[in-house]
Amino acid sequence: MKNFEFKILNSDKKSKARVGQFKTPHGVINTPVYMPVGTKASVKTLSPDELHDIGAEIILANTYHLYLRPGEKTIKKMGGLQKWTNWKKPMLTDSGGFQVFSLAQKKGFTKKCSKTLVKIKEDGVEFKSHLDGSTHFFTPEKAIKIQSDLGADIIMAFDECAPVHASKKYITEAMQRTHRWAERCKKEHQKLQKNKKNKQALFPIIQGGIFDDLRTQSAKFIAELDLPGIAIGGLSVGESKEKMYHILDLINPYLPKNKPRYLMGVGSPDDILEAVSHGIDMFDCVMATRNARHGSFWTLNGRSHLANAVYKNDKDSLMKGCKCYTCKNYSASYVRHLFMEQEMLGLRLLTIHNVYFLVDLMEQIRKNILNDKFEKFKKTFIKRFKYEKQDHKLSF
Amino acid sequence: MKNFEFKILNSDKKSKARVGQFKTPHGVINTPVYMPVGTKASVKTLSPDELHDIGAEIILANTYHLYLRPGEKTIKKMGGLQKWTNWKKPMLTDSGGFQVFSLAQKKGFTKKCSKTLVKIKEDGVEFKSHLDGSTHFFTPEKAIKIQSDLGADIIMAFDECAPVHASKKYITEAMQRTHRWAERCKKEHQKLQKNKKNKQALFPIIQGGIFDDLRTQSAKFIAELDLPGIAIGGLSVGESKEKMYHILDLINPYLPKNKPRYLMGVGSPDDILEAVSHGIDMFDCVMATRNARHGSFWTLNGRSHLANAVYKNDKDSLMKGCKCYTCKNYSASYVRHLFMEQEMLGLRLLTIHNVYFLVDLMEQIRKNILNDKFEKFKKTFIKRFKYEKQDHKLSF
Repeated sequence: MKNFEFKILNSDKKSKARVGQFKTPHGVINTPVYMPVGTKASVKTLSPDELHDIGAEIILANTYHLYLRPGEKTIKKMGGLQKWTNWKKPMLTDSGGFQVFSLAQKKGFTKKCSKTLVKIKEDGVEFKSHLDGSTHFFTPEKAIKIQSDLGADIIMAFDECAPVHASKKYITEAMQRTHRWAERCKKEHQKLQKNKKNKQALFPIIQGGIFDDLRTQSAKFIAELDLPGIAIGGLSVGESKEKMYHILDLINPYLPKNKPRYLMGVGSPDDILEAVSHGIDMFDCVMATRNARHGSFWTLNGRSHLANAVYKNDKDSLMKGCKCYTCKNYSASYVRHLFMEQEMLGLRLLTIHNVYFLVDLMEQIRKNILNDKFEKFKKTFIKRFKYEKQDHKLSF
Repeated sequence: MKNFEFKILNSDKKSKARVGQFKTPHGVINTPVYMPVGTKASVKTLSPDELHDIGAEIILANTYHLYLRPGEKTIKKMGGLQKWTNWKKPMLTDSGGFQVFSLAQKKGFTKKCSKTLVKIKEDGVEFKSHLDGSTHFFTPEKAIKIQSDLGADIIMAFDECAPVHASKKYITEAMQRTHRWAERCKKEHQKLQKNKKNKQALFPIIQGGIFDDLRTQSAKFIAELDLPGIAIGGLSVGESKEKMYHILDLINPYLPKNKPRYLMGVGSPDDILEAVSHGIDMFDCVMATRNARHGSFWTLNGRSHLANAVYKNDKDSLMKGCKCYTCKNYSASYVRHLFMEQEMLGLRLLTIHNVYFLVDLMEQIRKNILNDKFEKFKKTFIKRFKYEKQDHKLSF
C-alpha cells in the first residue's frame, strides 16, 4: 500500500480539467483543491475547527517563517505541525525558497542593491532575516531537513524563483540551478525518509520564466525526477494571464497524467477556473484571507468592499444563498460595523466567507467535471463574476 | 407575570454573599454573574457562539461608542442589539456617562484643561467625540432614548462619575446632579416603556466618591427610586481596596435585599470574590479580554504572561485541568507562538481562556454559596491566587 496515491475519477471532455483524489497519511484530498495559506502555522484569524467546518481539506505552512520563529526544532519537539496546531488533516509546507528571495529583499536592512542581501551560490542561498537582519544560509538539503522536522504531508523542493523581468540568461541559470537543487532535495529526502515513521511526499518545481523553450526543458526535467507530484512555480508573478495559460498549455504534454499538479500562488476565483481547465489540480493563494482583512469579499457577482455605505443598513447576508457560517448568522450591516471598527471578529467573519467561497467553488468544480458540465459551468461563472466585478468598480 | 424578577436561592451564613436568579426577557441570569464587555457590540475577538460555549449568560455593550458609530438608529433598524449581533441571551448597555467623562478627556483634542472638553450643565453634558472631535450633547433623557433604541434588557441611568480625587464639595454636587438625573431617567424610561414591546429594566447608580456620608445618602436615594436593580459606580477608580470594601459594607443596610446589585467595572478574580462576600451580584470588567490581548492569562496560581520563555516548549495547556476550548485543544507552546507572532487566533484563544476562567469562577462561587461553603472556598482561592501571583512576579 502506497503512502501517497493519486487517482483520477473523471477527465473533462472539452478541456484538460480532471477530478481526482490524492491520498496522504493524514487523509484524502479531493482535487482540484484550494489550500488556505497558514504562513506562520495559522490561517490568519481562523481556528482549525473553523477550517474544518468550512470544508478545507489541506492547509499550507511556511518553512521560512517557521524556521525563523519558533524554529523547526520546537515544532518537532511538540510533535510536528499537525499535532502542534491541532489541524488533523493534510498539510503542505513550501521550501522557503520564495520567501528567501522576496521577503529578504522587501524589508531592506541595507539600502544597497538586493544582491548584497541574498547571495546565491551553487551550494545554496545566504539571506538576511526580514525580522532582525541576522544572516542565514539555506541549502537544498537544509530546506528538506527543516521540512522533515516540521512534518507536513507534502513538502516542496528548494527552488529559485527568479524575477519575471530578469534576462533570459539569468532565468536559464536560475532554472538550471533549480534543477540541480531539485536532484539534491530528492536525494536528501530519500535519505531522511528511510528512518521516518511519518511519510512525506516531495514535490519538485518547474521554473523557466516566460520562455517557451525553458519551460519545456524544465517540465521534462522535473517530470523525469518521478516524484509523487509536480509544482509549477514562477507564474502569476507579473506576466500576463494569457502568457500564464499559454505556458500551462505548453508544458501540459510533458506532465505525467497520473500525478497531481500544483500551480503555486494562484489565485482568484476566475484564475482558478481557467487553470483547472488547463489541467491544474492544486492551488494556494493568500487572496481569500488577505482581501478579507482589508474588508473585501467575493460574491458570485465579483468582488465587493464593506466600506461601501450600501451595506450600513443591509439586513441581508454578504451573499445571497451562501451557506458559510458568516452568511448564515450575520447581516452585512453587522459585519460592516465590525470591519469599520477593526473588531477582530469582523476580520474573522470575512475570512470565513472568502475561504468558504473558494472551497465551495472547488466543490462545484469537481461536481461539474464529474458530470461533464465543467466548461459550461466555468463560462457562466466567469461571465457573471467578471462582468459584475467591473460594474461594481464603476459604482465607486 | 413580571418581566424582571430577582429570586434569592440561598444566602451565605458567614458573609453577605447570596446566590440568585434574575429573570429578563432574553433569559435567566444566574448571580453572582460576570458580564463580558462588548464595547462596540463585540466582545473583542469572540463570536457569540464562543461566548455561549464558554457559558456567558449576559454581555455588555456601550452606548457612547454605538451612538457615535454606527448610530443607535442603524441598530434599531436592524432589529436591536441582540438580533444585530446574533447574541440571543440577555444584554446590558451602560448609559455612556462614564465614557463621556473619561474618553473625551483622554484623547485631548485640545490641550486646554479638561473643563473645555466636557461641559457639565444641569440639563446634561456637552462633550467632544474621541473619534473626530465633533461636539455632542447627552441629557438623561437622550441616554435613555438611545438605550431604548439599542434594545438591551438592562439599561443604566445617566450619571456623573466624578474623579476620585475631586473635592468633597464637587463630589457632593456631582452626586446630587446624578440623583436628579436618575429621576429624569426613570421618568423618561417609564414614558418610553409604555408603547414598547421589548421591556427593559433601568438600573440607577449610587455615587458619592469615598465619603461615608455621601455614599449613605446616595444609597438611600437610589434605593428609594424602587427600580428593578441597583448599581454602584465610582468605585475601583483609584481608591484603596480596603476603602472599596468599607463602602460596600457601609451601604449594604440601605440596599433592598430583593434586588440585584451591580458593582460597575470590577474586577480581577480576587476582587470579585471579595465583592461577592460583600453582597454584590453582578460584575463587568475588561480585564479578562484586555489582558488576553496583551498576552497575559489567569490560572489558579495567579497571573502569567506568555512572553515567558518557559512556555516555548510547553506541551501542556495554559492551565492544568481547565476545561476551556483553548486548554482542551492547544498547548501553551502553540498559543505562545501565535501570541508572539500577533496572530489573531492567539489573541482569541487567550481571550477564551480568560473569560472562561471568570465565568467558571462565578459558577464555583454560586455552587459554594448554595452549599454554605463560600467563605472557605474564597479563602483557599485567594490565598493560592495571591501568593503565587507574587511568587510568579519574582521569577521575571
